Amino acid sequence: MIITFMSDFGTKDGYVGSVKGVLLKEAPDARLIDITHEIQPFNIKEAAYSLLNYYDSFPKGTVHLIVVDPGVGSERKPVIIRTLDYFFVGPDNGVFNFILKREAYQAFEIRPEVVNPQSFSNTFHGRDIFAPTAALLAKGIKPEEIAMPLERVVIDDHQELKLENNTCKAAVVSVDHFGNIIFALSREDLKHWKKVIKLVNFKNFKSDRIWDYYAQQKVGKPLVLWNSKNMLEIALSQGHAANYFKVDPKKDFALIELSDVTEKVENN
Amino acid sequence: MIITFMSDFGTKDGYVGSVKGVLLKEAPDARLIDITHEIQPFNIKEAAYSLLNYYDSFPKGTVHLIVVDPGVGSERKPVIIRTLDYFFVGPDNGVFNFILKREAYQAFEIRPEVVNPQSFSNTFHGRDIFAPTAALLAKGIKPEEIAMPLERVVIDDHQELKLENNTCKAAVVSVDHFGNIIFALSREDLKHWKKVIKLVNFKNFKSDRIWDYYAQQKVGKPLVLWNSKNMLEIALSQGHAANYFKVDPKKDFALIELSDVTEKVENN
Amino acid sequence: MIITFMSDFGTKDGYVGSVKGVLLKEAPDARLIDITHEIQPFNIKEAAYSLLNYYDSFPKGTVHLIVVDPGVGSERKPVIIRTLDYFFVGPDNGVFNFILKREAYQAFEIRPEVVNPQSFSNTFHGRDIFAPTAALLAKGIKPEEIAMPLERVVIDDHQELKLENNTCKAAVVSVDHFGNIIFALSREDLKHWKKVIKLVNFKNFKSDRIWDYYAQQKVGKPLVLWNSKNMLEIALSQGHAANYFKVDPKKDFALIELSDVTEKVENN
Repeated sequence: MIITFMSDFGTKDGYVGSVKGVLLKEAPDARLIDITHEIQPFNIKEAAYSLLNYYDSFPKGTVHLIVVDPGVGSERKPVIIRTLDYFFVGPDNGVFNFILKREAYQAFEIRPEVVNPQSFSNTFHGRDIFAPTAALLAKGIKPEEIAMPLERVVIDDHQELKLENNTCKAAVVSVDHFGNIIFALSREDLKHWKKVIKLVNFKNFKSDRIWDYYAQQKVGKPLVLWNSKNMLEIALSQGHAANYFKVDPKKDFALIELSDVTEKVENN
Repeated sequence: MIITFMSDFGTKDGYVGSVKGVLLKEAPDARLIDITHEIQPFNIKEAAYSLLNYYDSFPKGTVHLIVVDPGVGSERKPVIIRTLDYFFVGPDNGVFNFILKREAYQAFEIRPEVVNPQSFSNTFHGRDIFAPTAALLAKGIKPEEIAMPLERVVIDDHQELKLENNTCKAAVVSVDHFGNIIFALSREDLKHWKKVIKLVNFKNFKSDRIWDYYAQQKVGKPLVLWNSKNMLEIALSQGHAANYFKVDPKKDFALIELSDVTEKVENN
Repeated sequence: MIITFMSDFGTKDGYVGSVKGVLLKEAPDARLIDITHEIQPFNIKEAAYSLLNYYDSFPKGTVHLIVVDPGVGSERKPVIIRTLDYFFVGPDNGVFNFILKREAYQAFEIRPEVVNPQSFSNTFHGRDIFAPTAALLAKGIKPEEIAMPLERVVIDDHQELKLENNTCKAAVVSVDHFGNIIFALSREDLKHWKKVIKLVNFKNFKSDRIWDYYAQQKVGKPLVLWNSKNMLEIALSQGHAANYFKVDPKKDFALIELSDVTEKVENN
């Protein structure tokens, strides 16, 4: 069985190594797949977007372990999320935001004394609670045996996407490694609204064209496209859009003018 | 069998890749587990602390390969350290410092002409000597077959921890990825001395409280705690303590005022 | 079967994770080996040199997946390169330069509609075309079944190495993680020419000595040596040569004075 592992630990301190050791001690036949350990420390939003990018590429039954946990030791709950195809293990702090919005799920609160009867630290639940849980799930243990049903989980509901009349305001969700700027508007949102894009406004840049791929645009010039997860993206051909536009991911947003599907369809 | 691998190679040059290839050629059934390749180049102390964090999480029989080797090609010895549960392979340059202090061990000097009869470079013993050795151990070859008993190994004995009367001076051992500052004082040291902490002094910060977890403290405020390896740590709640205190890991230390166990026990 | 994976994706966005998921879905028994995902974005030359360092350490039959692909979605071809011992999968943009110069090979153009009959994005061929191809090869599918023979592939032929009379001009090929400067002159080139080195000139540094290993030189002083891939390298003992010499990898080169083998042999 596969266990993927994402964290904000960095690697140099050996913390990631110690989690891997626990996983292999408990589930010797599990396959460990590193996602990343370079999530910006405590950046739950970044982790949530990253998870969206990879979770559904994996085979059915995969256990996704996510440890980005600024509230470790406090009252935030350690949870298991079960969807139709996957298990997710981590802190209930918003990191599962995109999953909870897109998938049918059941949530469970992990019972630490069951997954780690010996003892556990207050500062390293990744090693002492989440890793044993992920290993047990990978071995076929059911969530019901090590956790309690949980009614409510944390879903981040701040308004990243607003539609008013035919104008949509979409916050920056992520700036990726290449400097591409990803916004909180998906192709599915448009379909749902029965709208198409007329004009994208971002800072001083305006575009009525949705491009197909980066190399279509001249080197160093900006373009708008649907990225590989069908989210709206502004990129710079062979360049770094976020630097070019001096993006502040916490504040910036795009204003997108829409029209009804019947008026105009050629762009999407 | 499991082989873990830590180095200061970075990854972009493919050096790590070439070591992995050698490991898999020699021991096709071994499971390779990356620890990190982002140890600061030539920083033996950082590697030693990182090793402490992960080595004993792994299943019995694991081979730990460590290549942080500024003296490659010189007279520093290539060694195998055998403890009750693990093998360690790497250069005899202090990187095994914490292991040698905490575990019963036997040391061996690797015979390069036995582990790599073909030929080896003078600049890349990671690929040409240490990797074949780790692979052979993972396949069940005994250290005695490929190495010679070694009487003395390098143990770093510079005074990182000093106790005088009831004042303990503990050097900075590591600044981790989150900026937490770790000192050369462990809970075991206190037990051994039969002392408890009265006051921790670090630069202009004083604390008579040992906290349980980060989120207990207000965001941006410093706190003292025992970390997940039971070493003394100063952290900043959701912040970067090393930046906040402008730490110089080579020079800085904490002064810790102690009292006898009989006087005061509530804090530890 | 082994699949190695190198890219310029970084890891934080989950793009690497999504490729790994696809590989494991298609080839559940494949062993995935991370090389690096920290190639500088779009730096084909860096990726090509890194590939040279690791490809032939791996067992016969290994599939090497390389995704550094600034031209994704444009007319650059997705290719399979088959050598005697390995398969290479990636974009035909020069990333296989060193392989094509050193190995006998057959080239194939991947048929996207065969490897991914469902659909594929225009911006993420790593996930949608290259990963399925690598997985199929790892499962034993022949290139002929999923790709068409290709007559010409991209070989970078800009003059990185020039010999005129007894002076050789060798461009900087790479600056590695340690700051070592690697030049486009290999020991094999000298053998082929029946020459030996008389004097290496690089900026204001001159050396008639080829050293054996770094620690032979005093700390902080430069030295010339043949690196572990038998390419000419200038290093700084326990230091960062590229910073020391303020290297510009795009412009700088070494001038190497040679003499015929019969005149002088002691240096090589």
